[in-house]
Amino acid sequence: MVKIGIVGGTGYTGAELLRILASHPAADVRAITSRGEAGTRVVDMFASLRGKYDGLAFTAPDATDLTSCDVVFFATPHGVAMAQARGLVAAGVRIIDLAADFRIKDAAVFERWYKLPHACPDLLAESVYGLPEFRRDAIREARIVGNPGCYPTSMQLGFVPLLEAGIVDTRHLIADCKSGASGAGRKAEVGLLLAEASDNFKAYGMSGHRHHPETVQELTRHSATPVDLVFTPHLLPMIRGIHSTLYARLTRTDVDLQALFERRYAGEPFVDVMPAGSTPDTRSVRASNVARIAVHRPGSGDMVTVLVVEDNLVKGAAGQAVQNMNLMFGLPETAGLTAAPVLP
Amino acid sequence: MVKIGIVGGTGYTGAELLRILASHPAADVRAITSRGEAGTRVVDMFASLRGKYDGLAFTAPDATDLTSCDVVFFATPHGVAMAQARGLVAAGVRIIDLAADFRIKDAAVFERWYKLPHACPDLLAESVYGLPEFRRDAIREARIVGNPGCYPTSMQLGFVPLLEAGIVDTRHLIADCKSGASGAGRKAEVGLLLAEASDNFKAYGMSGHRHHPETVQELTRHSATPVDLVFTPHLLPMIRGIHSTLYARLTRTDVDLQALFERRYAGEPFVDVMPAGSTPDTRSVRASNVARIAVHRPGSGDMVTVLVVEDNLVKGAAGQAVQNMNLMFGLPETAGLTAAPVLP
Amino acid sequence: MVKIGIVGGTGYTGAELLRILASHPAADVRAITSRGEAGTRVVDMFASLRGKYDGLAFTAPDATDLTSCDVVFFATPHGVAMAQARGLVAAGVRIIDLAADFRIKDAAVFERWYKLPHACPDLLAESVYGLPEFRRDAIREARIVGNPGCYPTSMQLGFVPLLEAGIVDTRHLIADCKSGASGAGRKAEVGLLLAEASDNFKAYGMSGHRHHPETVQELTRHSATPVDLVFTPHLLPMIRGIHSTLYARLTRTDVDLQALFERRYAGEPFVDVMPAGSTPDTRSVRASNVARIAVHRPGSGDMVTVLVVEDNLVKGAAGQAVQNMNLMFGLPETAGLTAAPVLP
Amino acid sequence: MVKIGIVGGTGYTGAELLRILASHPAADVRAITSRGEAGTRVVDMFASLRGKYDGLAFTAPDATDLTSCDVVFFATPHGVAMAQARGLVAAGVRIIDLAADFRIKDAAVFERWYKLPHACPDLLAESVYGLPEFRRDAIREARIVGNPGCYPTSMQLGFVPLLEAGIVDTRHLIADCKSGASGAGRKAEVGLLLAEASDNFKAYGMSGHRHHPETVQELTRHSATPVDLVFTPHLLPMIRGIHSTLYARLTRTDVDLQALFERRYAGEPFVDVMPAGSTPDTRSVRASNVARIAVHRPGSGDMVTVLVVEDNLVKGAAGQAVQNMNLMFGLPETAGLTAAPVLP
Repeated sequence: MVKIGIVGGTGYTGAELLRILASHPAADVRAITSRGEAGTRVVDMFASLRGKYDGLAFTAPDATDLTSCDVVFFATPHGVAMAQARGLVAAGVRIIDLAADFRIKDAAVFERWYKLPHACPDLLAESVYGLPEFRRDAIREARIVGNPGCYPTSMQLGFVPLLEAGIVDTRHLIADCKSGASGAGRKAEVGLLLAEASDNFKAYGMSGHRHHPETVQELTRHSATPVDLVFTPHLLPMIRGIHSTLYARLTRTDVDLQALFERRYAGEPFVDVMPAGSTPDTRSVRASNVARIAVHRPGSGDMVTVLVVEDNLVKGAAGQAVQNMNLMFGLPETAGLTAAPVLP
Repeated sequence: MVKIGIVGGTGYTGAELLRILASHPAADVRAITSRGEAGTRVVDMFASLRGKYDGLAFTAPDATDLTSCDVVFFATPHGVAMAQARGLVAAGVRIIDLAADFRIKDAAVFERWYKLPHACPDLLAESVYGLPEFRRDAIREARIVGNPGCYPTSMQLGFVPLLEAGIVDTRHLIADCKSGASGAGRKAEVGLLLAEASDNFKAYGMSGHRHHPETVQELTRHSATPVDLVFTPHLLPMIRGIHSTLYARLTRTDVDLQALFERRYAGEPFVDVMPAGSTPDTRSVRASNVARIAVHRPGSGDMVTVLVVEDNLVKGAAGQAVQNMNLMFGLPETAGLTAAPVLP
Repeated sequence: MVKIGIVGGTGYTGAELLRILASHPAADVRAITSRGEAGTRVVDMFASLRGKYDGLAFTAPDATDLTSCDVVFFATPHGVAMAQARGLVAAGVRIIDLAADFRIKDAAVFERWYKLPHACPDLLAESVYGLPEFRRDAIREARIVGNPGCYPTSMQLGFVPLLEAGIVDTRHLIADCKSGASGAGRKAEVGLLLAEASDNFKAYGMSGHRHHPETVQELTRHSATPVDLVFTPHLLPMIRGIHSTLYARLTRTDVDLQALFERRYAGEPFVDVMPAGSTPDTRSVRASNVARIAVHRPGSGDMVTVLVVEDNLVKGAAGQAVQNMNLMFGLPETAGLTAAPVLP
Repeated sequence: MVKIGIVGGTGYTGAELLRILASHPAADVRAITSRGEAGTRVVDMFASLRGKYDGLAFTAPDATDLTSCDVVFFATPHGVAMAQARGLVAAGVRIIDLAADFRIKDAAVFERWYKLPHACPDLLAESVYGLPEFRRDAIREARIVGNPGCYPTSMQLGFVPLLEAGIVDTRHLIADCKSGASGAGRKAEVGLLLAEASDNFKAYGMSGHRHHPETVQELTRHSATPVDLVFTPHLLPMIRGIHSTLYARLTRTDVDLQALFERRYAGEPFVDVMPAGSTPDTRSVRASNVARIAVHRPGSGDMVTVLVVEDNLVKGAAGQAVQNMNLMFGLPETAGLTAAPVLP
C-alpha cells in the first residue's frame, strides 16, 4: 500500500482525489490537511464519501507530520507546494503538485504569470511535467511531479502528433477551449453561481490565461519550429468536461491524419483516438481518466481540426495525478482508474 | 410619469425591477443606490441593460436625496427599508419594500425570525401586505407596501380559495415548494455555485424558514380556523421559477374545486386557473407576472392537490412590486407587465 | 463468473447495467439483444463503453440463444419479460426483470394499469419483488425477480419504518417525488427535449401513475392498517436522481424517529440514514447504489417528513438489479457496486 | 395594422414569432396553419401564450386562404415556402421565409445542400437576403425576404467589418460556433433529449453544415478576395443563445479594430459593439433582438478574435424576421423588439 497525504483537500481536485483513491487497490490515505476545516470530518464536508472515509478528518497543516507518507498530493492554490517541497523531499517523500508550482520551468515566466518568486528553483529544475503520454519514463523516477493543467492536457494531446510530424504552421495554432464550471474551483464567486453561469456561455481570460505559457512551453518541446498559440477559454454551463477544438494550417496535405494519431497513441490506456468522422462528446469521458480525440480535415482543405474531450477533474487533474502516482510506485498504470465513464 | 428611486439595485430583484421598468410606459427611474457599487454605471454591471439605462449610475446611499421621488423601491436585505422609511414617508414618498421589513405584522415575531428589533412599529402597523389579489383596495391607498415573499405568494394563491370556502383541515396544510436558484439572491455562496447546485436537488431550511410565519399570518386572515402549515422548500437546478405543490385534507368532498378556483380568480389579470387536469410548468410563466394554478383531487379521494407556478423574480418579487406601484399611482394594473412569457 | 444475458440494452437501464457490470468482478456479459440495433457494436452506440465491450454487438432476439446464461436481465418495455420467462426458467436460467412484468402480484391490477393480460400468472405468483432491504432471503432463492420501480424504491425505503412501527395515519400518506429526466427513458419525445425540459419544472401523471399501485401493494405488506397514498411525480431539469419528500401524520409523537430509522437500516450496505437535521442532495448518490434518508418532525408537530434520495438508474434500476444478482448467486452483496458517488 | 399569416407555427421559430408579435403595436395575426395540429388552439399547445391568442387556432394549410394577409411568415421546414410563394406573391402578399428556400442564390448550390430542386428560380432571383444591417434598403422594397440562418447571422456580423476593410486573410477564416439546443428545432430526436444533451458538449456537422454555403455566399459579397471558411458548430447544454468565436489572420496590424467595429455599427439599433476587452455572454441578449460583439487581438499578434452573441431564436430567427417586416411595412425598425433581455 502506498501511504498518501493530501494537502488542501476541500476543493474539487481534492474531493476528486478522494473519490478515485477510495476505489484504488493500493492507496492508503493517511492524512488530509486544511487550514480552514481542521477538525471537520471528511464525510461531513462531502456526504458522497460517507462510508468511505468515516475515520478521516482534516487536520491543521502545522500539526500534521507528512514525512511518514510515501507521496503527498498538493490540491492547493499555487504557492503552497513549493513552500513545503524541500522538507518533504529531504524526508524521502515524493510530491505530486496539482497546482502550477512545478509546471513552468522558467522561474521568471512563473513569477510573471503567478506574481510570486519561485521558492525552490533547484527543485523546479529537477521536477518532471506529469503528462504520462509524453514523459512516462521521467515520471517513474521523479521526486516531484508538476501535474499538468486541465486545458494544457487537452491541447497537448491534440497538437503534439501534428507538431512531432512537422506538418503544421506552428506560428498560428488556435485552441478554442470550453470547460465546465468545476474547472474554476470550489470558490464562492458571483460569476460562477448557477443563476449566473447556467443557461449561459461566454469566453473569458482574453487578456491572457495562465495555461497559455504552460502549453506553449510544452508544445515547443515537440516542435522543430517556434510555437505561437491563440488560446480562447470559454465557460460551459455544466459541471465537468473540457472540449478543446484545435485548429492548425497544414503545411503538407498528403499525410493520413487519422493514421498519424492512431499510431501516436497506440497502446495508450487513456487516450482513445476515435474512428474517422467522429465528434466525441464530453459525457463520453465523464468521471473517467480517458481523453478521446477525433481529427478532421474540413472540406479536404489545408486546415486540420482536432477535437479533444476530457474530464477536467480526472484526466485534467486528479485522475492524471493518480496515473502519475501509479507510475512513480511501480503499480499498474491503470490502477484505480478503470471504472467506465458515467453516461447518461 | 412616476418618479422612481431604487435602493440597493445590484441584486436579482433590483436587476429585475430595472428590466421591467425599462418597458414601463410611465416609469422614470431617477436614482439607484448601492453602498458597494457607487459610481458604477448600471450597464457596466448588467450588460443586458445596455441601451436602456446608459445614463444611470449607482450612487452612494448617503449622497442620494430620494425625497423628490414619488416612490422608492427597496431591493435590499431586510433591515434597510425600516431604517429609512420614516424620513421618506414624512417627505411624501411612498415605499414598496421587496424585503421583509413590512411583511410580518407582529414586531415580536419579526424580531424572532429576523434577529432585529423593528425600527418603526407604527409604520409597520399602517403598512399593507402587497398581494393585490387579496388586498387591492388597501394597496391603492397605502403609503408603505410590504411586497410578499416569493414562496408565500405562491402558497397563498393556492390555499386561500380553499380556506375561504372552509373546506379543508387547516391544521395540516402541506406546502412542498421548489424554487430556482435566483431565489437565493445574487450572493457568493459555495452551495449556490453551478458546480454544486446544478444537476442536483435538495430540500433545505427544514428547521424553519422565514417565509413560514409570513405565510401562516396571511393564511390565517382568510381562515375561520387556526392554520398550521408544514412547509418544505427545495432548491431546483435552474435559474427562475417556483413550483408549489400544495396538499390539504378535504373536510367536504362535494365542492366543485375547479369552479371554486375559477370563480375566485375570475377577472384577475395575473392569475390563470388552468383547465381541469392541467400540470402547469414553470417555464409557462418565465419572465412574466402571471401565476398559473391547477387543482386536482387525486383518485377522487379526500385530499386536494394544488399546483401553483410563478416566476420568483416577477410575480414573486419585482413584477408584483410594479403591480403594486401601478395600483398606488392609479395606473392600469398591467402597465409594464404585459409581455408574454419567454418559452422555450 | 456469472454468465449474463441482457435483453434490450439500448435504453438507459441497459446502458447503466453495462456500465456497472464492466467493473463487476464476477460478471461475464455473453449476449445482448436488440430488435432495432442488431448488428451494431455496443461501443458504437455508447462511446463511453469503448475499451470495455469492444467485442460485443447487439444481436436479434430471435437469433440469440440465452439458455446458456446463468441469468438474463430484461431492460425492456413491459410485456417482453413475461413473454420469454417460461422458456428461460425451464432451461434453468434465472431472470431479473427491470420492467414491471413481475412487480404487481394481482394479474387483474397489472392488466388494468398496463393494458396487457399477464402471460404467465403462475410464474408471477412465484416471482419475488426485488427490494433486498425487505426481501433479502426470498431473493436469494428466486428464479424470477421483479426489480422495483425507481419511485417505489424510494417511497418504500422512506415509509416502511414508519409503517412497521405503526405510528402514522396510513390512510393519508403523501409522496411528493421528483425525478431526473433519465427516468423517462431514452425515447424521442418532444416533452423530454433539453429545450423543453431544462430550466423548467412540472408535475405530471396526476391522473394516475403506474408506480402508485406497485407502491401501495408493497407498503401494505408492512402495514397493519390499509394504505392510501397521494403520489405526485415531478420532472426535474437534470439527468439523474430522485428526491422523494414523504409526509405522514403521526399517530404517536413519543417515538424517537431518528433512532427508529437508524435501527431499521443498521448494517444495510446501501441505505444511509443521515444524521438528524440533514437534507441529503441527489448528487451525494450520483452513479451509486446508495440511498440516503433523513427524517424530520417539522416544528415538533404531529407530522413527519422523510427525505429520500437515490440515483434512479442505480438503486432505482440497474444497481438494484445487480444487487439482486449478487444475492441470487451467492456473491458479496456489494460486488461491483462499491465505487464512490460522483460529486461534483 | 399589418395583417399577418404564419405557416407552420408549431416549432420554436413559430412560437417565438407569436411571442414577439403579441407585444407588437401594429401586428394582427389573422391565421396560423399546421398540417398536424389543425383544430388545436394555440394556447393549448403553448400555455405561455394563454391570454394572448385565446381565439386563435391552427388551421389546415389547404383550408386556409392567406391571400388577404399583408405578409406571410414561413416557420416551416425548407421546401414549403417556395412551393407557395408564387401564388401568394401574385396575390400581393409579401413573404418572409424563416427557412432556407430564399437564402442561397445559386439554385444548383441550393439543390446540392437541400436535396431539392428549387421550385421558383425567378422568385429566388428577386428575393432579398434579410440581414438588415447589410441590406436595409433592398429589404424595404422586397416582395420575398429570405431570413438568414442563426449561425450565418452571427458570423456575418462578426466578419463583415474585417472583410470590408480588407485587412484579413480571407482564405482561412475560422468560425467556432456554439448554439443552444433550441437551434435544432422542436423535434423528437434522441440526441436532443435533456438526458443526452445536458451536462454535455460536442461538435457536430463536421462533414458539412448547410449554414456554410449560405455564409460563404454572403461574406463573399463583402470581400474583394475569395472567401474560405472553416465552420465548426457545437451543441451547448442550454436552451437559447449562440456564441460565435471568429478567428482571422490580419494582413495589416496597424488598424484600430475597436474603432473599425464601432464605426461600422454606429446607429444600428440591434448591434452593440462592446467596450474594448469585453467578453459578451449569451444571457446578455436572452429573448432580445440585440447582437453583442467584442473584438480582440490576442497578445497583440497578427490574429484577430471576434466574439459575437445573439439569441438564436430572436436575432437568429423570429426577431430578425419581425425587424424585416418592420422595414417592409414602413414601421419603426424596432417596433415590438424593444423589451430588455431577460437576465438572469
